[in-house]
Amino acid sequence: MSFSQLRPTQLCFARLTPPATRFSWRSTALGRRYMSQDIGRDFMTGEASSRLTITKTTSPKELPPSKSLLFGRTFSDHMLRIPWTEATGWGAPSIAPFSDINLSPGATVLHYAQSLFEGMKAYRHEDGTVTMFRPDMNMKRMNSSAQRLALPTFNGDALIECMKELISLDRNWIPKEPGHSLYIRPTLIGTNGTLGVAPPNEALLFVITSPAGPYYPQGFKPVPLHGTTEYIRAAPGGTGAYKLSANYAPGVVAQKSAAKQGYAQNLWLHGPEHWLTEVGTMNLFVVIKDRDGVTELITPPLDGMILPGVTRDSVLTLARNHASGAKRLQGLPDAIKISERPINMAEIILSSKEGRLVELFGTGTAAVVTPVERIGYNGGDVMIPTGEDGMGPVSKPLWTELVGIQTGAIKSDWNYVVAK
Amino acid sequence: MSFSQLRPTQLCFARLTPPATRFSWRSTALGRRYMSQDIGRDFMTGEASSRLTITKTTSPKELPPSKSLLFGRTFSDHMLRIPWTEATGWGAPSIAPFSDINLSPGATVLHYAQSLFEGMKAYRHEDGTVTMFRPDMNMKRMNSSAQRLALPTFNGDALIECMKELISLDRNWIPKEPGHSLYIRPTLIGTNGTLGVAPPNEALLFVITSPAGPYYPQGFKPVPLHGTTEYIRAAPGGTGAYKLSANYAPGVVAQKSAAKQGYAQNLWLHGPEHWLTEVGTMNLFVVIKDRDGVTELITPPLDGMILPGVTRDSVLTLARNHASGAKRLQGLPDAIKISERPINMAEIILSSKEGRLVELFGTGTAAVVTPVERIGYNGGDVMIPTGEDGMGPVSKPLWTELVGIQTGAIKSDWNYVVAK
Repeated sequence: MSFSQLRPTQLCFARLTPPATRFSWRSTALGRRYMSQDIGRDFMTGEASSRLTITKTTSPKELPPSKSLLFGRTFSDHMLRIPWTEATGWGAPSIAPFSDINLSPGATVLHYAQSLFEGMKAYRHEDGTVTMFRPDMNMKRMNSSAQRLALPTFNGDALIECMKELISLDRNWIPKEPGHSLYIRPTLIGTNGTLGVAPPNEALLFVITSPAGPYYPQGFKPVPLHGTTEYIRAAPGGTGAYKLSANYAPGVVAQKSAAKQGYAQNLWLHGPEHWLTEVGTMNLFVVIKDRDGVTELITPPLDGMILPGVTRDSVLTLARNHASGAKRLQGLPDAIKISERPINMAEIILSSKEGRLVELFGTGTAAVVTPVERIGYNGGDVMIPTGEDGMGPVSKPLWTELVGIQTGAIKSDWNYVVAK
Repeated sequence: MSFSQLRPTQLCFARLTPPATRFSWRSTALGRRYMSQDIGRDFMTGEASSRLTITKTTSPKELPPSKSLLFGRTFSDHMLRIPWTEATGWGAPSIAPFSDINLSPGATVLHYAQSLFEGMKAYRHEDGTVTMFRPDMNMKRMNSSAQRLALPTFNGDALIECMKELISLDRNWIPKEPGHSLYIRPTLIGTNGTLGVAPPNEALLFVITSPAGPYYPQGFKPVPLHGTTEYIRAAPGGTGAYKLSANYAPGVVAQKSAAKQGYAQNLWLHGPEHWLTEVGTMNLFVVIKDRDGVTELITPPLDGMILPGVTRDSVLTLARNHASGAKRLQGLPDAIKISERPINMAEIILSSKEGRLVELFGTGTAAVVTPVERIGYNGGDVMIPTGEDGMGPVSKPLWTELVGIQTGAIKSDWNYVVAK
């Protein structure tokens, strides 16, 4: 691959003006060596060369037909890289053609899973505006993951600005069809090539993007889940609340086992009480009517085992705004109780028997909302009601609002404008 | 780097003669496509080209002074690589100069920790013979780890033969000083560049080696441990019994916390009962005298949370041989009870108070035996007796026997001859 059109730009950081950041930058310019922890969480360590550079591809790839898109299979023309070393802090961000990452065979990411990531999306509105959905939430979580692994933290606003440049450059990779988007995958890995189990002294933050079709092109199709009790996704004192690479590979066997038994995904049930925690790689919501007929929207609490999902938070916020009257959503029951509380299989089965189970759905960046039709459990299936179009009475108005915001039909400060 | 002296060899597989393997090979030669699961666990998929090739470096590195060796910092001149794809199975093994691994930025190892490894050692005996210590145990565990992650399994004997070739080629990298060895790191990673969380359809097995000095060059120095209750290493239904990359990065914060409080390593305490499980990245042994004065050697059982360590198994085997009279070890008490059973901090504290706590030590490939002098717990320190030379009355004869075997002073079928 040949590169060209090298052009340095200050745009990425021109908008970065929190006083703390400026101060750190100036201090660094005076020669003080900063660790990532004390540079005001900035990518820059004070060198003029630490500004974003963009190297455009000279051989752009052909865009894949939108209809043939499969999740995460095709990547856009460019990627963002930001190196870090313990000695010099964050180096200069660069956008360059998508290309291999070369690692020492001793790199800690390969041996000890020193790795974490985020999943987020950019949407093209009808008027051509491109936005990212709540990237501040992803940046916050990514820094939280980095701390959990003793990897370097960074200035989330700076990374958002760099990602805007990347998405802007590859905006033709966002399919024009409704329901399509550009999936964005920021990743942070430990790269130093020594075999000790310790915080890395070299790391690389990179961002790749991938055009994504709608998760349910033929409309919602509720999925069957298999209740997993043999394997765990998380445990108290573990890493379930962080988006670490280490949380994913060990879950594949549970998925395989679910698939073998004819289920689409697995439902992580925790402890002898079989608490519902997550659905495959999604957060989980249950809707139940209490004995007084009041609708309760329930999701497991952030007790250290649950990933603090951006879609989870968005669903809770929209539902709470509805319940408080701040913004009513059409179709959603007037009286709705929103609960972050534990719920176990016994409660699911009881409410199902008593006809009070309304619906159950997963939430995540990839599919936004995924309705569930049944849960394989104890050798049988617990049936979950689903609406005619696949969605339930609570998930549908919430999904409609959420997608309305993401696609620009509804104005919201959750949208970060990338390009107009 | 320039390569030369390409020479194909069949040596690596000449010794590989289990009938099942041969059969699979022939069947494959007839054109049947095999998945890794049904090719008799062989690296070969039937093509003549699937034999080991060796490309020697033309620019050998200078050997580092043995005194300056730090664990895992320096790698020998060559490495072994064996690629795998779902469609074609295991490809041809190759030994070539140590060089970077090039990965797609979408490679599953980077995003989902599809990665596992082993740690083992080759020793140079006084007569020049080079041996590996119980590599069959590592191969068994590596395949067990691969299955847990839905990564491809393989023929362990074939990998041992390939590693012998690698070690033989780089035998000058085994330092000549007593107590030194060559650390061997086989690693298996998922390499396909697509973002779905699923079994990979491409993988790479590679082996690198690193010269290692004695862990305690100035004799044994017992270490202080900090009892970790805030974080976990493993949990029931998790991956603690497998040597997965995913088990390591999340433990760094516990190490950092221990170090900050002045302790050398952390002691993983599980559950509200504070069961002792592992020491940092080592297995754990406790020696206690019961009230009748009988010495009990205790290690936590393989309940799914404990790594089945090769040194752990070796210590248990030597102690059991002693207890049964099969092979008495000088210095070890005649009456010794060997127990794989849970032990918690309450029992440690009680036996300490009653003067019955004899010693506590970690075992692992890197340090073989590591004596412990105290445990930071509940704001105080539980003191552990240690002998004059740092070791205890049980660990010392076991360590002496083990190291005697590894260095060739004592004959044993645990040694696999690499070169004479």
